[in-house]
Amino acid sequence: MGESWTSEYVIIKALENGVTIMGLTRGRETKFHHTEKLDRGEIMVAQFTEHTAAIKIRGRAEIYSRHGVIRTEDQGIQG
Amino acid sequence: MGESWTSEYVIIKALENGVTIMGLTRGRETKFHHTEKLDRGEIMVAQFTEHTAAIKIRGRAEIYSRHGVIRTEDQGIQG
Amino acid sequence: MGESWTSEYVIIKALENGVTIMGLTRGRETKFHHTEKLDRGEIMVAQFTEHTAAIKIRGRAEIYSRHGVIRTEDQGIQG
Amino acid sequence: MGESWTSEYVIIKALENGVTIMGLTRGRETKFHHTEKLDRGEIMVAQFTEHTAAIKIRGRAEIYSRHGVIRTEDQGIQG
Amino acid sequence: MGESWTSEYVIIKALENGVTIMGLTRGRETKFHHTEKLDRGEIMVAQFTEHTAAIKIRGRAEIYSRHGVIRTEDQGIQG
Amino acid sequence: MGESWTSEYVIIKALENGVTIMGLTRGRETKFHHTEKLDRGEIMVAQFTEHTAAIKIRGRAEIYSRHGVIRTEDQGIQG
Amino acid sequence: MGESWTSEYVIIKALENGVTIMGLTRGRETKFHHTEKLDRGEIMVAQFTEHTAAIKIRGRAEIYSRHGVIRTEDQGIQG
Amino acid sequence: MGESWTSEYVIIKALENGVTIMGLTRGRETKFHHTEKLDRGEIMVAQFTEHTAAIKIRGRAEIYSRHGVIRTEDQGIQG
Amino acid sequence: MGESWTSEYVIIKALENGVTIMGLTRGRETKFHHTEKLDRGEIMVAQFTEHTAAIKIRGRAEIYSRHGVIRTEDQGIQG
Amino acid sequence: MGESWTSEYVIIKALENGVTIMGLTRGRETKFHHTEKLDRGEIMVAQFTEHTAAIKIRGRAEIYSRHGVIRTEDQGIQG
Amino acid sequence: MGESWTSEYVIIKALENGVTIMGLTRGRETKFHHTEKLDRGEIMVAQFTEHTAAIKIRGRAEIYSRHGVIRTEDQGIQG
Amino acid sequence: MGESWTSEYVIIKALENGVTIMGLTRGRETKFHHTEKLDRGEIMVAQFTEHTAAIKIRGRAEIYSRHGVIRTEDQGIQG
Repeated sequence: MGESWTSEYVIIKALENGVTIMGLTRGRETKFHHTEKLDRGEIMVAQFTEHTAAIKIRGRAEIYSRHGVIRTEDQGIQG
Repeated sequence: MGESWTSEYVIIKALENGVTIMGLTRGRETKFHHTEKLDRGEIMVAQFTEHTAAIKIRGRAEIYSRHGVIRTEDQGIQG
Repeated sequence: MGESWTSEYVIIKALENGVTIMGLTRGRETKFHHTEKLDRGEIMVAQFTEHTAAIKIRGRAEIYSRHGVIRTEDQGIQG
Repeated sequence: MGESWTSEYVIIKALENGVTIMGLTRGRETKFHHTEKLDRGEIMVAQFTEHTAAIKIRGRAEIYSRHGVIRTEDQGIQG
Repeated sequence: MGESWTSEYVIIKALENGVTIMGLTRGRETKFHHTEKLDRGEIMVAQFTEHTAAIKIRGRAEIYSRHGVIRTEDQGIQG
Repeated sequence: MGESWTSEYVIIKALENGVTIMGLTRGRETKFHHTEKLDRGEIMVAQFTEHTAAIKIRGRAEIYSRHGVIRTEDQGIQG
Repeated sequence: MGESWTSEYVIIKALENGVTIMGLTRGRETKFHHTEKLDRGEIMVAQFTEHTAAIKIRGRAEIYSRHGVIRTEDQGIQG
Repeated sequence: MGESWTSEYVIIKALENGVTIMGLTRGRETKFHHTEKLDRGEIMVAQFTEHTAAIKIRGRAEIYSRHGVIRTEDQGIQG
Repeated sequence: MGESWTSEYVIIKALENGVTIMGLTRGRETKFHHTEKLDRGEIMVAQFTEHTAAIKIRGRAEIYSRHGVIRTEDQGIQG
Repeated sequence: MGESWTSEYVIIKALENGVTIMGLTRGRETKFHHTEKLDRGEIMVAQFTEHTAAIKIRGRAEIYSRHGVIRTEDQGIQG
Repeated sequence: MGESWTSEYVIIKALENGVTIMGLTRGRETKFHHTEKLDRGEIMVAQFTEHTAAIKIRGRAEIYSRHGVIRTEDQGIQG
Repeated sequence: MGESWTSEYVIIKALENGVTIMGLTRGRETKFHHTEKLDRGEIMVAQFTEHTAAIKIRGRAEIYSRHGVIRTEDQGIQG
């Protein structure tokens, strides 16, 4: 499975219940391969892996990354 | 599939519904191989991979990258 | 088992009894492979490994990481 | 296809419709191998690849790079 | 046994008698493989190894790490 | 063709029509192997490659490089 | 015996007679493999090695490390 | 031809017509293998290569390098 | 004998006659393999080697290291 | 001929006519293998190579190097 | 003889006649293998090598090293 | 002859006529293998090589090195 444990990680902190973290595959086809639900105040520390090349986050959350702290916005009205 | 999990990532935050993120292929021909839709407030953390050498973003969004934070502009009038 | 001892680590400090630290697998399927309970004031220093690509934390805790110190929020009301 | 996913990337932001991004080949002959059109406000994140050794940009745009932010100038009068 | 002597180390300083340092295994199963007791004022300098991927600390102590100095809290009341 | 995609790049911005960018060969003989014309405001992002070891620029332009920003001077009078 | 001479070192300075420095083994079993006594004012410069993955210090001493200078506390009353 | 595309480059800007850039060979014998003429305002971005180990510049010019910007002096009187 | 000449070095300066520098072996057994005496004002520049994994210093001296300058204390009274 | 194109370079600027730059060989015997004359204001950018391990400069000149800018002194009186 | 030319060097400057620089061997036995005498004002630039793992300096001198400048003290009275 | 062209260099500037630069051999025996004379104002840029592991400088000179600029002292009285 290689040395993917040296890859970078981001930290996601849920600011409401039901934040969804979706892992997208690395291969020729880009598909969702895993979905994780976070409730308010839960934290996920997630690496890129041989299987995950992209992460999609839905719901009020904060992303801690090498590019700073990024906050998703409220979707209650339009979502 | 190599060690592409060590490649860099950018973070895209949608500022409106329907932001489109298109992955362009790395090979001899440059084609769209994947399209991802983001709704307002959703976030995508995306790496370059063996298959993706360029990313095109359409719609109001913010890109967090090693070159700073870049904001697409409103296209409502001309687009 | 490779050289995963060079991977990064995060430090988790429990601020209440019963903080749960869940290790998620790296492989094709993302499953919980280990759950660790921390009581108030206990500390866990945890690396990414060949088996752990993501860590989920539930309960009042502080995460010390390369992206700073992150505090989970109280879940007593909604959780 | 090598490990070209570790190469550097530039970010191009179109300031008007019809910005053209042309990829030039790396080989003995330097030819255009791909042309991408950006409309106003669209963003392109582009790596150098095994096939692309130079990028030419035409139209009002901003280039975000390791050498800073560079703005093309208006060509409406002379172009 | 590889080159695990290049891995990082943390330093743990006991602030009371009976501080417990537990090493958790790196393998598929995460188990305690070693427990070390520190009395007040004793110090432990501990590396991650081929066998230890996580360290759990119980009792009043200070952890010196690349993420700063972290102090466990008093557990006398709830623990 | 090696890994020349990791080489450095310079950015050239034309300040007038007809700026000429000439690539000189790396081999035993140093010859022009490619000439690119830029019109005012156009930008070229160019890497060194297995074939290009030197770049000559003629006409009013700005060069963005690791050694700073360098501006060619007007040649209208003497050139 | 590998290249363990490139590993990190800590420096221990005894502040009283009889400071004990215990080396713990790296292998599957964590045992004491060496004990060194320092008298007041003596200094030990010690590397991690193929055999030593943890160091335990007992008695009044100062540890100089990449995480700063750490002082054990007096144990005369409780120890 | 090796990987000489990763070598360093200097930038030479001519301040008068007829600036001469001479490449000297790397081999056992040090000979001129290429001469390039720059007119006023022209710029040359030049790497060291398998064939070029030294560069001699004659005429009024500025050299941009890792050691700063260096200006040749006027030779009109003595040269 | 490997490449131990790239290992780190410390510098020891004797502040009195008879400062003792003892080299401890790297192998399974930790034994003294060499003892060097320094008189007042003499200096020793010493590397870790394949044979030396720890250095013990006795007597009034200063140690110059990557963790700063450390001074042994006078032992005349207790030693 | 190896990869000597990655070696460091110094820049020599002649402040008078007839500055002499002598390359000394790397091999068992240290001999002059090349002499280059610079006239006032001329500049030489010179790498260490497989053949050149030392450079001797005679005459009024400035040396730009990783250790700063160094100016030879006037030799007219004693030289 | 390996690549010991990349090892670090220290610079020793004699402040009186008869400063002695002794090289100690790297091997299992630590012996003096070379002694060099410096007179007042002379300078020695010395690398660690395959044969030299420690350097002992006797007499009034200054040592320039990665840990700063260190001055031996006068030994005239006690030495 | 290896890759000794990547080794470090020092720069020696003679402040009087007759400065002597002596190269000492790297091998088991440390002998002078080359002596170079510098006159006042001359400069020598010298690398460590496969053959030179130490450099001895006699006479009034300045040494430019990674440890700063070091000046030999006048030897006229005692030398």
